[in-house]
Amino acid sequence: MKLKARPLEIQAGGKSVAILDDDTASLLGLHSSDRVTITYKKQKTIGIVNIATNFPPSFVGLYEEISEKLGTKAGDEVEVQPADTPQSLGHVQAKVRGERLRENEIQMIVKDAVERHLSDIELASFITALYVHGLNMDETEALSRAMVRTGRTLNLKNQGPILDKHSIGGIPGDKATILIVPIVAAAGFTIPKTSSRAITSPAGTADRVESLCPVDLSIDEIKTVVGKTHGCMVWGGALELAPADDIFIQIEYPLAIDPLLLPSIMGKKKAIGATHIIIDIPAGRGAKIKTTSEAHSLAYDFIDLGKRLGMTVQCAVTFGEQPLGCAIGPALEAREALAAIMGKSPFDLKDKATSIAGILLEMVGVQDGKQTAQHILESGKAEKKLREIIEAQGGKPQVRPEDIAVGDKRAEITADKEGRILGINTADMARIAREAGAPKEKGAGVLLKAKLGEHVKKNGALFEIYAERDSKLEAALELAKKLVPISLTKGAEQGMLIDRIPVKVEHKKPFILER
Amino acid sequence: MKLKARPLEIQAGGKSVAILDDDTASLLGLHSSDRVTITYKKQKTIGIVNIATNFPPSFVGLYEEISEKLGTKAGDEVEVQPADTPQSLGHVQAKVRGERLRENEIQMIVKDAVERHLSDIELASFITALYVHGLNMDETEALSRAMVRTGRTLNLKNQGPILDKHSIGGIPGDKATILIVPIVAAAGFTIPKTSSRAITSPAGTADRVESLCPVDLSIDEIKTVVGKTHGCMVWGGALELAPADDIFIQIEYPLAIDPLLLPSIMGKKKAIGATHIIIDIPAGRGAKIKTTSEAHSLAYDFIDLGKRLGMTVQCAVTFGEQPLGCAIGPALEAREALAAIMGKSPFDLKDKATSIAGILLEMVGVQDGKQTAQHILESGKAEKKLREIIEAQGGKPQVRPEDIAVGDKRAEITADKEGRILGINTADMARIAREAGAPKEKGAGVLLKAKLGEHVKKNGALFEIYAERDSKLEAALELAKKLVPISLTKGAEQGMLIDRIPVKVEHKKPFILER
Repeated sequence: MKLKARPLEIQAGGKSVAILDDDTASLLGLHSSDRVTITYKKQKTIGIVNIATNFPPSFVGLYEEISEKLGTKAGDEVEVQPADTPQSLGHVQAKVRGERLRENEIQMIVKDAVERHLSDIELASFITALYVHGLNMDETEALSRAMVRTGRTLNLKNQGPILDKHSIGGIPGDKATILIVPIVAAAGFTIPKTSSRAITSPAGTADRVESLCPVDLSIDEIKTVVGKTHGCMVWGGALELAPADDIFIQIEYPLAIDPLLLPSIMGKKKAIGATHIIIDIPAGRGAKIKTTSEAHSLAYDFIDLGKRLGMTVQCAVTFGEQPLGCAIGPALEAREALAAIMGKSPFDLKDKATSIAGILLEMVGVQDGKQTAQHILESGKAEKKLREIIEAQGGKPQVRPEDIAVGDKRAEITADKEGRILGINTADMARIAREAGAPKEKGAGVLLKAKLGEHVKKNGALFEIYAERDSKLEAALELAKKLVPISLTKGAEQGMLIDRIPVKVEHKKPFILER
Repeated sequence: MKLKARPLEIQAGGKSVAILDDDTASLLGLHSSDRVTITYKKQKTIGIVNIATNFPPSFVGLYEEISEKLGTKAGDEVEVQPADTPQSLGHVQAKVRGERLRENEIQMIVKDAVERHLSDIELASFITALYVHGLNMDETEALSRAMVRTGRTLNLKNQGPILDKHSIGGIPGDKATILIVPIVAAAGFTIPKTSSRAITSPAGTADRVESLCPVDLSIDEIKTVVGKTHGCMVWGGALELAPADDIFIQIEYPLAIDPLLLPSIMGKKKAIGATHIIIDIPAGRGAKIKTTSEAHSLAYDFIDLGKRLGMTVQCAVTFGEQPLGCAIGPALEAREALAAIMGKSPFDLKDKATSIAGILLEMVGVQDGKQTAQHILESGKAEKKLREIIEAQGGKPQVRPEDIAVGDKRAEITADKEGRILGINTADMARIAREAGAPKEKGAGVLLKAKLGEHVKKNGALFEIYAERDSKLEAALELAKKLVPISLTKGAEQGMLIDRIPVKVEHKKPFILER
């Protein structure tokens, strides 16, 4: 049927949608979600039908994706014909039925997801089926490979190994990367670190580093920075290393499920050409992984998948029962990390950074990795390297912690009794920091004044909230008073009672989607 | 945040979507699929966030659903604030995790689906989870009740029982309803039959009846017709008996899964106030139900669910290995049904109609139901009643079969050898009739010239394709030649070989979504 093209001015998501009015669709025997081929001159593409009741007949509304492929302008006559559903949809349906998918079937699904030939409904069904039926290791490997194949790669012209680290996340305040990358680069190894921005957390590593220097670099710029300094700390989001993952995240986020954790992380590592990777798995009640035994099981999968993809992987299970260091929020964390690399580090941050850097160094043959890492940190070599990287990425190399602006609206939360700190609810802490404005308002966040096991006097400081705006400060303060994220023992000794549960309360389970 | 309302001119589906540009969303800490409250004067509503890259900042794009609720016009200033996700989404996620849902939880999901507070992604995940984990009978009952509660009801002021029939479908050419309703009504019982239009088939009962009289009646008009004639045959689609079901169908259709078959059918029966229902379950290789044992299992669920909802249900398992009668397609079927009620019926159509009507009559105390039904049919009482109903619904009561226009483009498919008919692929037949233009082009379809077991000479007629347009006729003819839907034995006797399979062929499984 000949219809007039009508480019749609407003469109959410880059989908290949073709909008038809009710009658036109019915004449063509089409329902919403059916496919059409749209032909214009010699160009041909597939659209997913959406039926609108208020759309003018004899027109077809085209999302940008389609208009661009066809080169149509408003009013151009195009030919619209019913088309078969894509083969990949059959494979989605097979997974829903509980079948195992073969590599070429998974490749088709990922390719069609990236090319927007599968709708949100179909992708949501796929993700749900992956979550419910699980993925075996063959499927996980195939998904990783398909993500790499549909994305760009870094292709460093490197002789030696390419190192990388990744934390599966879930611990607020984890700024260890800002220490680890300079330590490893200062040891002479290549570590082109890409990070994400926060999705559900108060700060992603890209958000933190952005308080020190630009992070939005192109692939060519990354190559230059790594060529000069052996390392980088950039935002991976715009590099299109695994565009499929961005699409899957849009689906996973509202559903609060994350069946693609393994292939997503490892696909991106493969795309930057990593050869040796350390995966940090924080284990703690508020973290993504609750227990060390869960952590072990996940670690084995990472190691196995790494092997299948030709990468050496080791995992570190780290203590995840409280935030790392004291600062939560982009600018506060950047300050803390910079001060730490300059010699003034909270013990846990320094210990985690040197432990992880140490394992990574040992993976490429360095003896006594942790001591080596400590030496690099304490000798000032790591600081020097960080400043080189900051400069190469376009920041001010001489930046001091106090140069980093933090929110000037502040409020302190104090203890209502004397006691020792028995628990810090990391999910609550993250919520409070977000309520204060993080990660968008970079100066917002939380600064802990006491950590697990420490003794606090009545009216002693527990933590401080930082915000850029009064309204946000108030909102965060209110939330903090409601949540009571820090629990204290009665009296000064280590008590045993964790919780007293007088009545059932419906808790919203926090969902951590960070990669 | 104050934003200017921008009503969206084009919108597919009646969703409560609020479109924000990237930066505005980020400032508010919002991701796609998050919720916002939108406040205008004293009105307040919830929107599902969609982030668009090409949307003007300081505006919020509002789907009609929202504009109407708030009463906003273009440029009105509204207040937009992040809101919690609906509680129902938590219940969707619980079902994805494999939990059983309680009645009030299901009620919340269905209500939010109808009010468009759940997105396509979330509903697709719910439907997929229902399919994968299954529904127990408590959940099925709760879903039925929730569908009734969120829809309208018929409320006939009736003293006696209210009868109804339903076929779960899947057999092309099943026009038995057009005989059953008049037989039951002529016996003095009330049978307010609502039917659907075709979704995946060449004709739904509403499409068939529409060749005899209007079917798009309001609830008040239905009451008048039933008051006059005891029966009706109307389109249920616009009555909003179970608006949730229309929303679920939009999701089920692309996924080709139908976990809501039971609650959807029985919810609608409850909504029209039925007290005695016969469910027809055709069993056959091309039907929705393949074997009689599957049919029995489904039948028990229907009976059980009926009991829970306070309705008496019996089921009939019917032979579903070939189309019913000879005609497939709205007008061809209307012709055949009208001729049948006037005394010229194919044996199978007459037998099925009187069997089902007979069971229904026996359910309300009539002795020898089938004989009674046959007598009503053969005595002309059923025809008289059909004409009363046609007249009451606004059609011409004196309509003759030959008055019903059928396609004048025709082509005959003949046998390439002598033999007996061993199989008729009902799914293929349905596809050919749709390719010819059915159901939209009412005169299009297929007319069988021979049925199972019949002897056909070489070059003897197998079936005839009817179309309204040459291009459709050609397309259907080509498809018929490719599919070869009728298989013949070698020679004149009943042979035993059904299929010879020399090579693996990937078959697209046909999906039947009819209610």
